[in-house]
Amino acid sequence: MRSVLAVGAHPDDIELGCGGALSAHRAAGDTVTMLVLTGGQNGPGSCLERRREQERAARVLDAVLVWGRLVDCTVAPDAATVTVVETVLRSVAADIVYVHAPDDSHQDHRAAAAATLAATRHGNRILHYRSPSTTQFNPTMYVDISAHLDRKLDAIACHRTQVDASAMVDPEVVVASARHFGAQARTRYAEAFAPVRFVWDLRPVQSAPSARAAAVAEVTEVAALAGQLPPW
Amino acid sequence: MRSVLAVGAHPDDIELGCGGALSAHRAAGDTVTMLVLTGGQNGPGSCLERRREQERAARVLDAVLVWGRLVDCTVAPDAATVTVVETVLRSVAADIVYVHAPDDSHQDHRAAAAATLAATRHGNRILHYRSPSTTQFNPTMYVDISAHLDRKLDAIACHRTQVDASAMVDPEVVVASARHFGAQARTRYAEAFAPVRFVWDLRPVQSAPSARAAAVAEVTEVAALAGQLPPW
Amino acid sequence: MRSVLAVGAHPDDIELGCGGALSAHRAAGDTVTMLVLTGGQNGPGSCLERRREQERAARVLDAVLVWGRLVDCTVAPDAATVTVVETVLRSVAADIVYVHAPDDSHQDHRAAAAATLAATRHGNRILHYRSPSTTQFNPTMYVDISAHLDRKLDAIACHRTQVDASAMVDPEVVVASARHFGAQARTRYAEAFAPVRFVWDLRPVQSAPSARAAAVAEVTEVAALAGQLPPW
Amino acid sequence: MRSVLAVGAHPDDIELGCGGALSAHRAAGDTVTMLVLTGGQNGPGSCLERRREQERAARVLDAVLVWGRLVDCTVAPDAATVTVVETVLRSVAADIVYVHAPDDSHQDHRAAAAATLAATRHGNRILHYRSPSTTQFNPTMYVDISAHLDRKLDAIACHRTQVDASAMVDPEVVVASARHFGAQARTRYAEAFAPVRFVWDLRPVQSAPSARAAAVAEVTEVAALAGQLPPW
Amino acid sequence: MRSVLAVGAHPDDIELGCGGALSAHRAAGDTVTMLVLTGGQNGPGSCLERRREQERAARVLDAVLVWGRLVDCTVAPDAATVTVVETVLRSVAADIVYVHAPDDSHQDHRAAAAATLAATRHGNRILHYRSPSTTQFNPTMYVDISAHLDRKLDAIACHRTQVDASAMVDPEVVVASARHFGAQARTRYAEAFAPVRFVWDLRPVQSAPSARAAAVAEVTEVAALAGQLPPW
Amino acid sequence: MRSVLAVGAHPDDIELGCGGALSAHRAAGDTVTMLVLTGGQNGPGSCLERRREQERAARVLDAVLVWGRLVDCTVAPDAATVTVVETVLRSVAADIVYVHAPDDSHQDHRAAAAATLAATRHGNRILHYRSPSTTQFNPTMYVDISAHLDRKLDAIACHRTQVDASAMVDPEVVVASARHFGAQARTRYAEAFAPVRFVWDLRPVQSAPSARAAAVAEVTEVAALAGQLPPW
Repeated sequence: MRSVLAVGAHPDDIELGCGGALSAHRAAGDTVTMLVLTGGQNGPGSCLERRREQERAARVLDAVLVWGRLVDCTVAPDAATVTVVETVLRSVAADIVYVHAPDDSHQDHRAAAAATLAATRHGNRILHYRSPSTTQFNPTMYVDISAHLDRKLDAIACHRTQVDASAMVDPEVVVASARHFGAQARTRYAEAFAPVRFVWDLRPVQSAPSARAAAVAEVTEVAALAGQLPPW
Repeated sequence: MRSVLAVGAHPDDIELGCGGALSAHRAAGDTVTMLVLTGGQNGPGSCLERRREQERAARVLDAVLVWGRLVDCTVAPDAATVTVVETVLRSVAADIVYVHAPDDSHQDHRAAAAATLAATRHGNRILHYRSPSTTQFNPTMYVDISAHLDRKLDAIACHRTQVDASAMVDPEVVVASARHFGAQARTRYAEAFAPVRFVWDLRPVQSAPSARAAAVAEVTEVAALAGQLPPW
Repeated sequence: MRSVLAVGAHPDDIELGCGGALSAHRAAGDTVTMLVLTGGQNGPGSCLERRREQERAARVLDAVLVWGRLVDCTVAPDAATVTVVETVLRSVAADIVYVHAPDDSHQDHRAAAAATLAATRHGNRILHYRSPSTTQFNPTMYVDISAHLDRKLDAIACHRTQVDASAMVDPEVVVASARHFGAQARTRYAEAFAPVRFVWDLRPVQSAPSARAAAVAEVTEVAALAGQLPPW
Repeated sequence: MRSVLAVGAHPDDIELGCGGALSAHRAAGDTVTMLVLTGGQNGPGSCLERRREQERAARVLDAVLVWGRLVDCTVAPDAATVTVVETVLRSVAADIVYVHAPDDSHQDHRAAAAATLAATRHGNRILHYRSPSTTQFNPTMYVDISAHLDRKLDAIACHRTQVDASAMVDPEVVVASARHFGAQARTRYAEAFAPVRFVWDLRPVQSAPSARAAAVAEVTEVAALAGQLPPW
Repeated sequence: MRSVLAVGAHPDDIELGCGGALSAHRAAGDTVTMLVLTGGQNGPGSCLERRREQERAARVLDAVLVWGRLVDCTVAPDAATVTVVETVLRSVAADIVYVHAPDDSHQDHRAAAAATLAATRHGNRILHYRSPSTTQFNPTMYVDISAHLDRKLDAIACHRTQVDASAMVDPEVVVASARHFGAQARTRYAEAFAPVRFVWDLRPVQSAPSARAAAVAEVTEVAALAGQLPPW
Repeated sequence: MRSVLAVGAHPDDIELGCGGALSAHRAAGDTVTMLVLTGGQNGPGSCLERRREQERAARVLDAVLVWGRLVDCTVAPDAATVTVVETVLRSVAADIVYVHAPDDSHQDHRAAAAATLAATRHGNRILHYRSPSTTQFNPTMYVDISAHLDRKLDAIACHRTQVDASAMVDPEVVVASARHFGAQARTRYAEAFAPVRFVWDLRPVQSAPSARAAAVAEVTEVAALAGQLPPW
């Protein structure tokens, strides 16, 4: 069982960036905590509406929700923001952290990314997710969300004030991007991530170790299959 | 149980690049196949010696060894080399592939990387490892090899002709780099990788799903711990 | 009227990469030439079938089709390939050239990109398009293909042997990627490009030059609108 | 007729970065607005002198000048600066925006770039220009300013306090860089740009659509010219 | 005799990043000034302890120590910090400056790098050093510290509060990284640097200019040695 | 006294890329060897003319000239080319090597760069120079050629067949680029380089080591100059 922490600057950021992966984590029995740094005070939508929407979305994803109590459009990559992230990080003993990508046109997203990098300086599984306002993004890790796309869309739908009024939140684009990255990942629907650092845990996938027989004997057989090989 | 394929241009390349990870894969019950494209005909060491050394190293790592039957310093990123890799890839039904990094001063290493990228075009877990001749390398994935460094060194020691005569093969540097990347990975000893694409398999690490209680109730408690937070 | 040249390694590459932009060029009155370097001899599909498919697709896009007469999986970035591209380039006096992106797992795609860069060394509008096998791609230019997506899909549908049998050619993914890049371009459907160099032709969009009045007078008015500005 | 907005942190930044392109826009009948964020209070030159110089330069370029009313060396990439840019952006309904490149040793330049990226998050033609203090710059778009270099130099000459006293403002270097980038763009004098995103408007350059005849017939003829081609 | 300035955000940063190079500069007769921007007020260790430690370390390196008088975790890349660096830069007439790399998870390190870039905008030898919290680093310059590693370790050992309590300060890792980068530099122990800009001073290494004889005559001889060369 | 080797694919490549630096090396008493890989058989100009031009240019630069005996437009990054470079490298015991940048539209330039990287795998001072056909180039090292620009131009002028007939060889652009990079290097005229790896030799510039007095005493004085510093 892993403890997963997702950090986003505003209500809906986490769902858009890694809602499918969070659903997959829950399905794998991991705990999931969502830290939303600000209340999205600048709207569209009132602060109260957005809190309700975010709480509903967290329930859809079966995740614990923590509010960072910062103010929309004023997040700074300073010690105060680092402390917010560190406090939650330690409280939930997170061993996997998801956060915004650093190259983003929204200053709060950049600040959230920078503060989370500082807070997780001793951690070893930190992944950047993409937002609609991300400017440069070269993903190399993916999570297959084919079985989780519906739940991701349900969670996004909770943010009705955004779906109705923000050009940046469009479920049609969410599905298109999931399919686009799915093709890149050689699967159906996927979310894409850029790891800051990711230590791959090579625990046994299945308990019985494989029996191995005469390795050298196999060599010739396999090579023989390749008729095109030059003589050696 | 996963099927792992490591591709290297010459005897000793795989051990230097990902010998520790291969040992960790074996410990996790995965099967491991090493595809060595050439016989290292240019030396130092005779071709026969190098074959014996490579076979011994494969036994140390408990891996199947396949010879690609190409010739040292003439590997091209062409259809013939792609066919060699594809043949083995299908034969072992590999779902994880390790290969040289693309920015390398040795033409065989670059060709091995390019041909493997072509051969694995439908695969979704391909990782680049670093060689002493790699020129640019920005790793973001790591495997903790603290429990496997000795075996990696044992495997490298099998390549006596190289350890004795090649400035590029120095066990002291192998340990130093493992510690250097270990510090980067926030662990003790590590091997570093640059993923081409890596679909993270989020299967349960432990069977019992976590019980979750009143998410919203937790919110205030956690936030309250952060005395430095501004009023909201 | 511009002369546009699109270069692709195999039948269907051009349609997948820039079929929408070519349709938009035709709608704007530009001439379009498609240079397909090989006959796609490795299949799926026979060489004859693929030639027929490509000719049909060129008709759909109302483009001239030129066969490069090279052989699938053997394209090299050498003087012979450069000559093929140069010959067509001069014949059609192309002032805009589209070609594969350089970071691609298929050796023919990389070779097509490299040879075209050499052939167009004196040109000033060269754009890389993306293929399903492209590995790294950071687009910064886009063409809005909202009015041309259907024609792009029609052109791709001509390549029936590929649509039926190649995992890399999937119309559903074509639409998804067009929507994904459309959102990035702040439009509906788009194709994405990475310019090698692109000299923007600033010819008048509309003949009447704008009348401009007292510039300094406007300054205060505009600034006054921004009530949040600090005193100066 | 397009509406062009150029954003610069200090008096003279816009002229140095894209004065030639602005002159070309005017020649094409586009309207041009220059938003100078600060008064250049830190000198050299008094604030009053610099205002006069900037107003003169705007007249040379036949552009509307708007002062951002911020203070030299204190520009922050925060909501207040974003609001300044947004206010002007909407007021002039800009569809093309030029701004500093992000990698620059001057904090005001970085802040101007970041705030403009936020303000233009819904726009689709945003280009970074280069300043003498830019540190990393990989231009891929160019505007031919061969017919506009003199006007650019005239506009820069208006900033006499800078030309006389700042090591960063040297007309000789302006000409040299224009020739350097001109050679890169395969033209005579050019300004270089790095697009954030640029949707290329493929409107007809000339009204009469080209008549096209037997496409397939042309194929053989063109290919035949290339005597070096291998048989097929 | 060169005047070298090293800038670090906290006590111990400079020693970790370029302590060996500073020792090599002293051995070459250069003067060395260390500007430590903050007192490391956030610990571990009291501010007084850390001042004593830093002063001891400066004596070990035989360097002048200047305190920047800023506060730990609050360094901003603003005009005030730029002024601190500029003041010292001018005071010591530095012609070589070392500073943190820009991609670092610690906000003070990023701010120190940015402010130093601004302060050195007219300088021509500025090198980024690596810190344990650096996230991306592509070094291309190296200083051989084989004869200076002991002194570097002695200087680091002065920072006892850090060596004892900070996971980021581990002498074993310092040695390992020096060996890792030494292998990259084709020497034994090295420190690695990423130049912002570095003008190489090509002064004579040895006074007597070499006598050169018939250049063309040598051509054939040298070429003749390469028996493998094709006929020409 | 250093031994410098410059490698170029064709006659005139070396002069264009690093002719000024080579002149500076000679002025510093270093020996300089130019290895021209091909005879420029594809013209413009006959092979004989180009040999004479190159020999004249080498005399202008007072450098030894070695012909690589390869053929224009057929240079491959293979073992044969590596052997050519290695043969000369060992013959002259080069400790500094200059070669083409890797991102170049000419296949011979890319091959020359790749082969030289392989040949210099044990060396520690390798610098890439820029050619007119270089596509991406991020220089970080510079050599001040203000005193050597005339000699560089003289050497280029020897290549009369190129100056007269090749769009890529234009002395006016050579001067403009030298001034452009000179401004970047904060000097007058400069050549720009991208180091592969460069070990900086910190030998004494002047024999007398500096006397240093009470370091801590200086601290307060310097800091006091900065009136803007916050209290500590």
